[in-house]
Amino acid sequence: MTAIRVVAFGGGHGLSASLRALRHSARDLDLEITAIVTVGDDGGSSGRLRVERDALLPPGDLRQALAALAADNPAHRLTATLMQHRFASMAPGAAPAPGRGPRVERRADRSKDTLAGHAVGNLVLLGLIEMLGDPVAALDHAAAMVGAQGRVLPMALHAVGIEADVVAPDGARVTVSGQHSVAVADGRVVSLRLRPEHPPACPEAVAAVRDADWLIFGPGSWYTSVLPHLLVPDLAAAIVASPARRLVTLNLSPDRETSGLSTADHLAALHWYLPNLRVDTVVADAKWVGEPEPVRAAAAELGADLVLVPVAVADGSPRHDPESLGAALVPVLGATR
Amino acid sequence: MTAIRVVAFGGGHGLSASLRALRHSARDLDLEITAIVTVGDDGGSSGRLRVERDALLPPGDLRQALAALAADNPAHRLTATLMQHRFASMAPGAAPAPGRGPRVERRADRSKDTLAGHAVGNLVLLGLIEMLGDPVAALDHAAAMVGAQGRVLPMALHAVGIEADVVAPDGARVTVSGQHSVAVADGRVVSLRLRPEHPPACPEAVAAVRDADWLIFGPGSWYTSVLPHLLVPDLAAAIVASPARRLVTLNLSPDRETSGLSTADHLAALHWYLPNLRVDTVVADAKWVGEPEPVRAAAAELGADLVLVPVAVADGSPRHDPESLGAALVPVLGATR
Repeated sequence: MTAIRVVAFGGGHGLSASLRALRHSARDLDLEITAIVTVGDDGGSSGRLRVERDALLPPGDLRQALAALAADNPAHRLTATLMQHRFASMAPGAAPAPGRGPRVERRADRSKDTLAGHAVGNLVLLGLIEMLGDPVAALDHAAAMVGAQGRVLPMALHAVGIEADVVAPDGARVTVSGQHSVAVADGRVVSLRLRPEHPPACPEAVAAVRDADWLIFGPGSWYTSVLPHLLVPDLAAAIVASPARRLVTLNLSPDRETSGLSTADHLAALHWYLPNLRVDTVVADAKWVGEPEPVRAAAAELGADLVLVPVAVADGSPRHDPESLGAALVPVLGATR
Repeated sequence: MTAIRVVAFGGGHGLSASLRALRHSARDLDLEITAIVTVGDDGGSSGRLRVERDALLPPGDLRQALAALAADNPAHRLTATLMQHRFASMAPGAAPAPGRGPRVERRADRSKDTLAGHAVGNLVLLGLIEMLGDPVAALDHAAAMVGAQGRVLPMALHAVGIEADVVAPDGARVTVSGQHSVAVADGRVVSLRLRPEHPPACPEAVAAVRDADWLIFGPGSWYTSVLPHLLVPDLAAAIVASPARRLVTLNLSPDRETSGLSTADHLAALHWYLPNLRVDTVVADAKWVGEPEPVRAAAAELGADLVLVPVAVADGSPRHDPESLGAALVPVLGATR
């Protein structure tokens, strides 16, 4: 039996949840996993690397996807933990770095501390991309370093800006620039754009979409992690043309950027930004989805069945449980046409 | 047959040459290699990390030793090359980072570029030490990341200062502080000290010395890379007490810090700083050693035979050729008592 080729789109924590779920599904199914990651991050460590180092790609979301795919043996897990490790603040009052044995008195000039907040893996990815020039070769090597059970690719060959028109609570329409600003903007997003509007898609990502058996969208920040892929022209064309089946994993609860959207609106947004997108299956949690009929109707508009399964963590917080979501995906991904 | 346990002392390029030579020797001998590395570096990237991050250990010399021991397969070689990669300067006029495909206009604020000059491996080691708290566990994991054919240990559990009294060309005696300043000082070093004077030795390094079959000193910057080990009290005691045989690989030509020393003086300095040190074999290159008789006499003072073999690179520059030095070491290290 050949492997089922699965492409997961997203960024940040949502994509990590999707990939960790697929790792669980892969215990029962022979899966070949490819993550295609947004490249719009302009906050935190990635944002600083874009400003200070002219970083070709913001590494943070790529790093998180690699960590989610890291192999389970202790050495690769430790390398993945290192990649996720952020340099602590050296500000006065911060705890000293741990160490064995007595210590010589040291006199850090903490005003010059410039590494604080950077994740080690962001610097590793930055260095690999600088050294090799080719972001895909760099990501493939970083994947080998953590024994990744799958491939991580960027949605585009360079960093993009994310820009949105937002209708504020007082009715005013404002343009908001930057992924971070869009993610935390008050109001309703009425138009989402990339800057530049037509970034070059990553050819390996386009090929993975073309050859996929399943394309998986969500969960994740809808405007800043899920929809941007649909705005990269060559990637959107490949998504529409792919013979793959398509699955949407809905978020459990709205986040700040989608505070004005119902669950059904999330599905409608996929259609709005890529009108030719057809979907086969929508997965949601019955406890979180609310009234199911509008969601079922919105799914049907895309051509999809709604599957209601328990996929949230048990503590009542609105987070996907990788094991439950992974188990729920097995009969979906494993079904023959 | 059990492995021959070899401990190589040094730092920087000299230790790298010694370790690369031992890798060649290991084609003919079953060697278990341990590098014990000076921790006095206060220049460049390591020096900045000591000042800005209060780094427990200066990582540069440790990283170089790891790179010298990296496995020969392509994946580990690429990780080692990444560790050695230094972030390029983003200063105006510097070449842009390479990349595939068309580029969006990016606006780096190059005045904020703080990563330039740092080796990726220095940041990886810094992150591992911060994360694990234990420099030996951190080094062992970094060694696994490059598939190191041996172990790399620090000579002490925290960074030290190197200080020297130097007689300047005009006869004035001045105290010079810092490894970098000592290495480039004009004049003759008449007294070398560590600050603090009694740093805690790394217990794993002490154990490796105790269990070794061979201890190898040099080549390398004599005052700043070779002699400092003899000034760490517990390490010096272990060196004197070890049943191992001892080999000194002499430098091919004086460097700036030893411009006043003859080759024989290099051997006398070992005796000066550790009077109980006995040596079995001194290896030198006949083309570079000059008049051999004073060197032979100085070796005899330490109890050693002088072995003259061609170990320099063929282009006439005063650098050891790892293959030639490795071949020269085979009959020495492989000889049974």
